[in-house]
Amino acid sequence: MAGNSFGTLFRFTTWGESHGPAIGVVVDGCPSLLDLSEADIQPWMEKRRPGQSRYTTQRQEPDLVKIQSGVFEGKTTGTPISLVIENTDQRSKDYSEIAAKFRPGHADFTYWEKYGIRDYRGGGRSSARETACRVAAGAVARKVLGAGITVRGALVQIGPHRVDRSRWDWAEIDNNPFFCPDPVAALHWADYLDGIRKSGSSVGAVVEVVASGVPVGLGDPLYDKLDSDLARAMMTINAVKAVEIGNGFEAAELTGETNADEMRVGHDGKPVFQSNNAGGILGGISTGQDVVVRFAVKPTSSILTPRQTVDIHGQETDILTKGRHDPCVGIRAVPVGEAMMACVLADHLLRRRAERRD
Amino acid sequence: MAGNSFGTLFRFTTWGESHGPAIGVVVDGCPSLLDLSEADIQPWMEKRRPGQSRYTTQRQEPDLVKIQSGVFEGKTTGTPISLVIENTDQRSKDYSEIAAKFRPGHADFTYWEKYGIRDYRGGGRSSARETACRVAAGAVARKVLGAGITVRGALVQIGPHRVDRSRWDWAEIDNNPFFCPDPVAALHWADYLDGIRKSGSSVGAVVEVVASGVPVGLGDPLYDKLDSDLARAMMTINAVKAVEIGNGFEAAELTGETNADEMRVGHDGKPVFQSNNAGGILGGISTGQDVVVRFAVKPTSSILTPRQTVDIHGQETDILTKGRHDPCVGIRAVPVGEAMMACVLADHLLRRRAERRD
Amino acid sequence: MAGNSFGTLFRFTTWGESHGPAIGVVVDGCPSLLDLSEADIQPWMEKRRPGQSRYTTQRQEPDLVKIQSGVFEGKTTGTPISLVIENTDQRSKDYSEIAAKFRPGHADFTYWEKYGIRDYRGGGRSSARETACRVAAGAVARKVLGAGITVRGALVQIGPHRVDRSRWDWAEIDNNPFFCPDPVAALHWADYLDGIRKSGSSVGAVVEVVASGVPVGLGDPLYDKLDSDLARAMMTINAVKAVEIGNGFEAAELTGETNADEMRVGHDGKPVFQSNNAGGILGGISTGQDVVVRFAVKPTSSILTPRQTVDIHGQETDILTKGRHDPCVGIRAVPVGEAMMACVLADHLLRRRAERRD
Amino acid sequence: MAGNSFGTLFRFTTWGESHGPAIGVVVDGCPSLLDLSEADIQPWMEKRRPGQSRYTTQRQEPDLVKIQSGVFEGKTTGTPISLVIENTDQRSKDYSEIAAKFRPGHADFTYWEKYGIRDYRGGGRSSARETACRVAAGAVARKVLGAGITVRGALVQIGPHRVDRSRWDWAEIDNNPFFCPDPVAALHWADYLDGIRKSGSSVGAVVEVVASGVPVGLGDPLYDKLDSDLARAMMTINAVKAVEIGNGFEAAELTGETNADEMRVGHDGKPVFQSNNAGGILGGISTGQDVVVRFAVKPTSSILTPRQTVDIHGQETDILTKGRHDPCVGIRAVPVGEAMMACVLADHLLRRRAERRD
Repeated sequence: MAGNSFGTLFRFTTWGESHGPAIGVVVDGCPSLLDLSEADIQPWMEKRRPGQSRYTTQRQEPDLVKIQSGVFEGKTTGTPISLVIENTDQRSKDYSEIAAKFRPGHADFTYWEKYGIRDYRGGGRSSARETACRVAAGAVARKVLGAGITVRGALVQIGPHRVDRSRWDWAEIDNNPFFCPDPVAALHWADYLDGIRKSGSSVGAVVEVVASGVPVGLGDPLYDKLDSDLARAMMTINAVKAVEIGNGFEAAELTGETNADEMRVGHDGKPVFQSNNAGGILGGISTGQDVVVRFAVKPTSSILTPRQTVDIHGQETDILTKGRHDPCVGIRAVPVGEAMMACVLADHLLRRRAERRD
Repeated sequence: MAGNSFGTLFRFTTWGESHGPAIGVVVDGCPSLLDLSEADIQPWMEKRRPGQSRYTTQRQEPDLVKIQSGVFEGKTTGTPISLVIENTDQRSKDYSEIAAKFRPGHADFTYWEKYGIRDYRGGGRSSARETACRVAAGAVARKVLGAGITVRGALVQIGPHRVDRSRWDWAEIDNNPFFCPDPVAALHWADYLDGIRKSGSSVGAVVEVVASGVPVGLGDPLYDKLDSDLARAMMTINAVKAVEIGNGFEAAELTGETNADEMRVGHDGKPVFQSNNAGGILGGISTGQDVVVRFAVKPTSSILTPRQTVDIHGQETDILTKGRHDPCVGIRAVPVGEAMMACVLADHLLRRRAERRD
Repeated sequence: MAGNSFGTLFRFTTWGESHGPAIGVVVDGCPSLLDLSEADIQPWMEKRRPGQSRYTTQRQEPDLVKIQSGVFEGKTTGTPISLVIENTDQRSKDYSEIAAKFRPGHADFTYWEKYGIRDYRGGGRSSARETACRVAAGAVARKVLGAGITVRGALVQIGPHRVDRSRWDWAEIDNNPFFCPDPVAALHWADYLDGIRKSGSSVGAVVEVVASGVPVGLGDPLYDKLDSDLARAMMTINAVKAVEIGNGFEAAELTGETNADEMRVGHDGKPVFQSNNAGGILGGISTGQDVVVRFAVKPTSSILTPRQTVDIHGQETDILTKGRHDPCVGIRAVPVGEAMMACVLADHLLRRRAERRD
Repeated sequence: MAGNSFGTLFRFTTWGESHGPAIGVVVDGCPSLLDLSEADIQPWMEKRRPGQSRYTTQRQEPDLVKIQSGVFEGKTTGTPISLVIENTDQRSKDYSEIAAKFRPGHADFTYWEKYGIRDYRGGGRSSARETACRVAAGAVARKVLGAGITVRGALVQIGPHRVDRSRWDWAEIDNNPFFCPDPVAALHWADYLDGIRKSGSSVGAVVEVVASGVPVGLGDPLYDKLDSDLARAMMTINAVKAVEIGNGFEAAELTGETNADEMRVGHDGKPVFQSNNAGGILGGISTGQDVVVRFAVKPTSSILTPRQTVDIHGQETDILTKGRHDPCVGIRAVPVGEAMMACVLADHLLRRRAERRD
């Protein structure tokens, strides 16, 4: 209960269903005197917005964000920032197919068991539509981080196909509809995903988010580790089933000699790590290196192949999901992962300030 | 700051350093009238206790837990349960080697940058010793869960060597010093780890924790998902770098047809899932199936090979770590992972009760 | 920072300024399957709405609440309930008088020092307008409490004039513009307050809120006492400077013989208290008697008499506040106090459920 | 449930019963590099310690605090500070009188109803003994506040007898066993309280706590107001039934002209308030003036006169409380109120730091 908020000092609360009149987010704890307008938020919304290529759902939502509070004459006032996004394309259709059947892989069954009621017109709160609110909150978080800290995401795997890291180029991210940093992989993915799309199937993906310019000292050593907060953050995104920091699961296969990042002294006299297996976090605290998180997104269960399921009356049945859906929801998870990273960092940045010794 | 607590309704707070007089945990929110004595807690402590085989640190700690409050005449009273464990084997030694040098892969550097001070006699709060407190809290959590919910962990990978799941037998867990469910793998691991140990090296591992008997409906759909809380929980354990739920990263490679768990009606008329790729959680809410979590533990950085580092004066230097250390810290992470799973479930079980409709 | 939420399991977050486009509240943690529509909320809004008599501000706001999420087909779904109220009467006026001067007794100075910016067109977040959101949240809380628990408030003192408790009649509350339970006092107050109003002055008041039907066992013994949560709740209301439970400050003057409430056995065999000096709470936990809270509201500082102050440039100046203001803000604090009581009880009722032994 | 913690960034958790082996507190969130030793804490314990005059309980407890963690070489390390106090004088006696009877005015009945079990050997968690932990935490909080912020308490009323504020002298506090700032009243109180004590009765009191040197800007405008947090803090102290800030209930009787504190410019060019009716807080935020809180303590219900009650079997009975008790528990509430004020201020001071603009 009461589980729709995220963060401690920089804290946001989202509301709204995919088929209600609007969705929104209240960002509480943003410091005052930051420049903020809708123009600062909208570009990030565009990045996540559906219907921009044939590889994402064809739902058409302008996703225009309106600031309803917390900003006065172009600056934040330190009071809660309420952001609202109207739902405009809740297509009227026949819901009889899904109203009484539990879609496998969706939260239909668990919602029904937990609440005894659900808005069967869509995923309700579990719809990916909710993530628009996260992206809006993330845009505010970026303002808190300032220009010195950048947060960027990329799709590094679709189905079994991974990028070649030797070809990694951040500039390529905007040149393909996949946020793929490897131009060769992007071409290959286009063909692969066309096949998936045409067959009414879906496929999983892996997203990588990297934050640069993060100062040393963010995160607490035990239960509020920077990495445990990031793991939680990414796992709150729809369809995410796995999270890793730095070299992640690969670390299990390494020895102490190969895994630990050695240190030298740089030209400026400051310690420099020789590698970044740790993903920029040691003992739960940022090291000053890039913070690197990866997460796996499962394939959406909304596919054209009939699947076995049961209905709310306890009868066996089949279901196939028509309509507008994503062949690879992992694509739109990229800006969402960026937003969650930005929010976690903003929260820990404010917490870090509270520790400062004068 | 103030980051030494875990949980919302079932909440514990740990304190103590590896080289102080004692460590302890305060468990707040345990319901009243549960049977509880030190004898209920001690067996779980034994499971984690170091020095029990040649594959774990030779530090000898009896890890006797004393209940200091919250229990009256053998039953919990609903008030905070304070559990204390004395440190008895803080071996006196020469700390000059590590007092001024940052051990690569440890939290020495980040602690120093964050706090400007650290207890150089050991890992302080980042020592694996802290996890004894979690195991104690987990023993109380198991009381909250009751006999119907079981939480079991196993080591499924050491270095590159994985168990063969076709040989999985929970009964084997107690027959080898690795909590390994595959007796053939256990034999192989013994040889492999002897080599690691003798060379003064260390190796990573993967732990799997499974909870059975979990009722449907635990977890909240958005930011307090059962899986996001589990991800956070596991990532708070020392040296953990990756977490996955159900088939985890494998889901990224699958299609919607192969990944979603279909449903049929069982003999008792209740829905039955035909597989468990989801790891017992859909939309953040438990399905009633086994809840399955896996996490990667990196190799400890305390090894006998000299490593490049810097000291607190900003000078380049080398370091090698003598003394008592674990060739594979992942082994002792098994009971810790179980404890964290138990605590997360206990918390969500109490939260679930608050939702009940009468 | 991030201080715009209230409650733990039943939790609400408010947003919006008095002179922005709208204000609103997100209620998180409301159980599912409760009947809820705008018609359940609007009557409580009417009770608080300004401009209904000559004794409250003449700002005209319809205060129509719109439900934007969390309700499906007339029932709560367990997801966050977003409630929005448009601002319609943000009168355009010349703000030059108050834009640069700190109004004594208002939060102008402290806001300026804290945030370095403020919306000078009104009280911003410190405007009594924010309390409309609390009343809306309170209406939802009443649904959680159910029909068996009633929460009623009354004005028991205006300036130096108190009600005569021997004439207390809850039915009189709706017969006068003061929520006064004493019809004789109400007549007297009308004359008194006309004088205050005509002279452009203002006066303080005392509000009493009583909850009946509260079950035994709500509240926790130490830091989440029912009374400490109520004290906090009432002190968060604008202009409140004092709170007491039961006989409150009077208890300081009594002896143990006269203060403690003795117990007998009632006709139904259950314990019956012989008095209620404790205000229905012992050791932080509800006794089953009426829960009784009283709080003092200071006079609004917006008066027609010039007052000495300083401006944002550090210069001495005078200020007098023209415009629409309340001669006694305590009147409208009655429904707000009721709402806060309802929210605290709803939160503790849900917490209590989590403790239930089956 | 889980209600034994207080604070957000500076957060403490207490544990222990009056008749268990020990009580203690874990202080989490204390910044690093503060000088701290047991000698810093013990003097405050002495101030609260029972048995120091004939006006407080004759229970003899040395109340020696032991630091178990969080301090290294005389300085805080930023990790949790565990403080333990052994119980040494849990007098063995016949509990048959109180084991099965509910003492009127005590939490016996509500504990029994809430938990179904209670440690009948004393007040358990509701014993004033728990407040020793608060005083220890308060001593740490004072370190966070630093030398520039002082927190002092005084007893300003015993039964119907108040101090004469024109004779207020902080230096007198230590010259009488009542923390009374008025030497004339102190003499009178001694006689009065001797009578109360000899007759086996008890009496209530009012405590005032004043913080000086508090910077402008502590506290948040809505639900985490400095005054709402203080109200909650004081109401969590045993037997407290009322709290007021500044002129408190008196404000209800005043007009806007007399209540609002006017401002002028001081010699240093900074704003100076001409009075302090607001008690140093406007809109929930500190003004820089003295923060002034008063709270009422009810008379202890443990008296020698038989009182009507019921027992756990639902039978009517009488009870009189022999043994060691306080004729006026309000006396020892003075250092406890100081400690809670210090903790609230420390928390908000750290929160304020998080807001700082660079």
